[in-house]
Amino acid sequence: MTSSARIAVDAMGGDGGLFVMLDGVAMARRRFPDLRYVLVGDEPAIRKGLSRHPNLEAAADIVHADGMVASDDKPSQAIRRARSTSMGIAIDQVKQGNAAAAVSAGNTGALMAMAKVSLRTMPGIDRPALAALLPSLGETDTVMLDLGANTECDARNLVQFAVMGAAYARTALDLARPRVALLNIGTEDQKGTDIIRDAAAQLRDAGHLNLDFTGFIEGDRLSRGEIDVVVCDGFSGNIALKTAEGTARFVADLLKRAFRSSVRSKIGFLISKPATELLRDHLDPNNHNGAVFLGLNGLIVKSHGGANASGIANAVGVAAKMVRDDLSRRIADDLGNIEARAA
Amino acid sequence: MTSSARIAVDAMGGDGGLFVMLDGVAMARRRFPDLRYVLVGDEPAIRKGLSRHPNLEAAADIVHADGMVASDDKPSQAIRRARSTSMGIAIDQVKQGNAAAAVSAGNTGALMAMAKVSLRTMPGIDRPALAALLPSLGETDTVMLDLGANTECDARNLVQFAVMGAAYARTALDLARPRVALLNIGTEDQKGTDIIRDAAAQLRDAGHLNLDFTGFIEGDRLSRGEIDVVVCDGFSGNIALKTAEGTARFVADLLKRAFRSSVRSKIGFLISKPATELLRDHLDPNNHNGAVFLGLNGLIVKSHGGANASGIANAVGVAAKMVRDDLSRRIADDLGNIEARAA
Repeated sequence: MTSSARIAVDAMGGDGGLFVMLDGVAMARRRFPDLRYVLVGDEPAIRKGLSRHPNLEAAADIVHADGMVASDDKPSQAIRRARSTSMGIAIDQVKQGNAAAAVSAGNTGALMAMAKVSLRTMPGIDRPALAALLPSLGETDTVMLDLGANTECDARNLVQFAVMGAAYARTALDLARPRVALLNIGTEDQKGTDIIRDAAAQLRDAGHLNLDFTGFIEGDRLSRGEIDVVVCDGFSGNIALKTAEGTARFVADLLKRAFRSSVRSKIGFLISKPATELLRDHLDPNNHNGAVFLGLNGLIVKSHGGANASGIANAVGVAAKMVRDDLSRRIADDLGNIEARAA
Repeated sequence: MTSSARIAVDAMGGDGGLFVMLDGVAMARRRFPDLRYVLVGDEPAIRKGLSRHPNLEAAADIVHADGMVASDDKPSQAIRRARSTSMGIAIDQVKQGNAAAAVSAGNTGALMAMAKVSLRTMPGIDRPALAALLPSLGETDTVMLDLGANTECDARNLVQFAVMGAAYARTALDLARPRVALLNIGTEDQKGTDIIRDAAAQLRDAGHLNLDFTGFIEGDRLSRGEIDVVVCDGFSGNIALKTAEGTARFVADLLKRAFRSSVRSKIGFLISKPATELLRDHLDPNNHNGAVFLGLNGLIVKSHGGANASGIANAVGVAAKMVRDDLSRRIADDLGNIEARAA
């Protein structure tokens, strides 16, 4: 990472508005003091907001955008208006080489579509994939992809996702040789669809890659910390991720209900509050914020729309680490290895 | 339900062995005193076990089986040995009309395969499906199907699952007109695969069925109590169910860790123990035990292998309710309605 490396931020996306975005970027700036930030959006409003953050102001460039993508805009609408929106211009900063990565907390579908059209897929990648970090009982989070960019996938797509996911885990989780598994409905070789079995066969033969393929994993083992990268098509991945989020909230709601059920349990709750806050902290989506759109000629990070400043800072941190480790080059190298082997 | 209605029980399946099975059936017998039970397995051992349960003994018939299906038997192996196993003979009791339903806590794949071969699918059903009850924040559990019997499904399969799931919800949850949704990766009409969109179109047109089709539901809303039946292919359903189980256990593990993290939190835990036990009770799989294999000419209930006596009693209770409400006839009637409408 050179001292001139810059991260473009869609300052207008996100449910919390411009001030939450600026608070978050300012926090990230303190963690990554070598980076510069390109803040894209309404220039007068950004200038005004920056007056509260002299530390960020010193490391920020502003690029004006007249408009923004609304949360209910269809991807096709967003693409047509790309050049006038803060999201579209942030992506374009990456395309033009003015920034090494872009971060947005706006409309996911629009971001994926615009990034794909603008940046195009890397040589050797048929389709980009959305990857995120899941909390686990292990020492690190777990990378999961695809989370919804590709509703249907073939075996070749899944193998490419495995390569990209492993490269991302080496960067985001500091692992030398990530353990990679395919999400399936059983662990025996004959389980699942032809596509999954075919992908497994290809990964078993790929011992030259910088990853350990461990076979199939079922939904109930995802958070045990036994693997580092879970690979699946975007349909299953989206179902699994959202079911995990919903179940965690469900259990937390039941716990709240239980603690409120008697005076005694209310007292117990107050005494053990530091413990339950530890739990909340571990499960807080802000602490795992920053999904990555992998496989494009440029790095794009998607923040939760509802992230707070700390969540935005984490999403920017994800971008910073990828820039620092030159993730795109790593993926390209690994793909080159596969191609060379196949040839 | 006539006083002669009988439920066949594979007394040898299940991790807990014969005694746990008998304890569970004896509990169920107290809840459903009008039923009789056909206990299938090693006759001398069953007779000996029954001496501890005179109440059950009075309502039980014994059918001897020399062998049993092992937990690691392949379905094809199990089918070949069907006539000599407690599981196979329990299913055969249903086929011969000696029992109205069969319950087993043994090998799931073997049970599904043997039941399918022996009982065959109902007229109007292309493929049977596995349905279970999920805990929810609503007033009742939520029915979910398919959970793994069919890795890939077409729109027609999904519509049939919706009909069977709604009939099952009317029986198991005492609902007049269950709310039915399709599991998808978004709620907008254009989301998901062609198959899911096609199934949704067919269900939207099926206002004459005894169900309210509410559209798509995402994984994060499954346990909110907003719908009564979730329909999906067996791959997504298995991923969602297992991810939910795994996440609930993950959060419980984190909570335990948090409570153990300091003396203060240990004290708080002891004081609030009745509250956390309420939570454990709500999430205990034994309290939601009994998955149902729907769409066959005969009712088959699968218990968790690791169920305790209370779990076995619940699985037998699921069978008892289906027998009482004549579930197979209800499904046949609803299918007749669809066919008549289509003609």
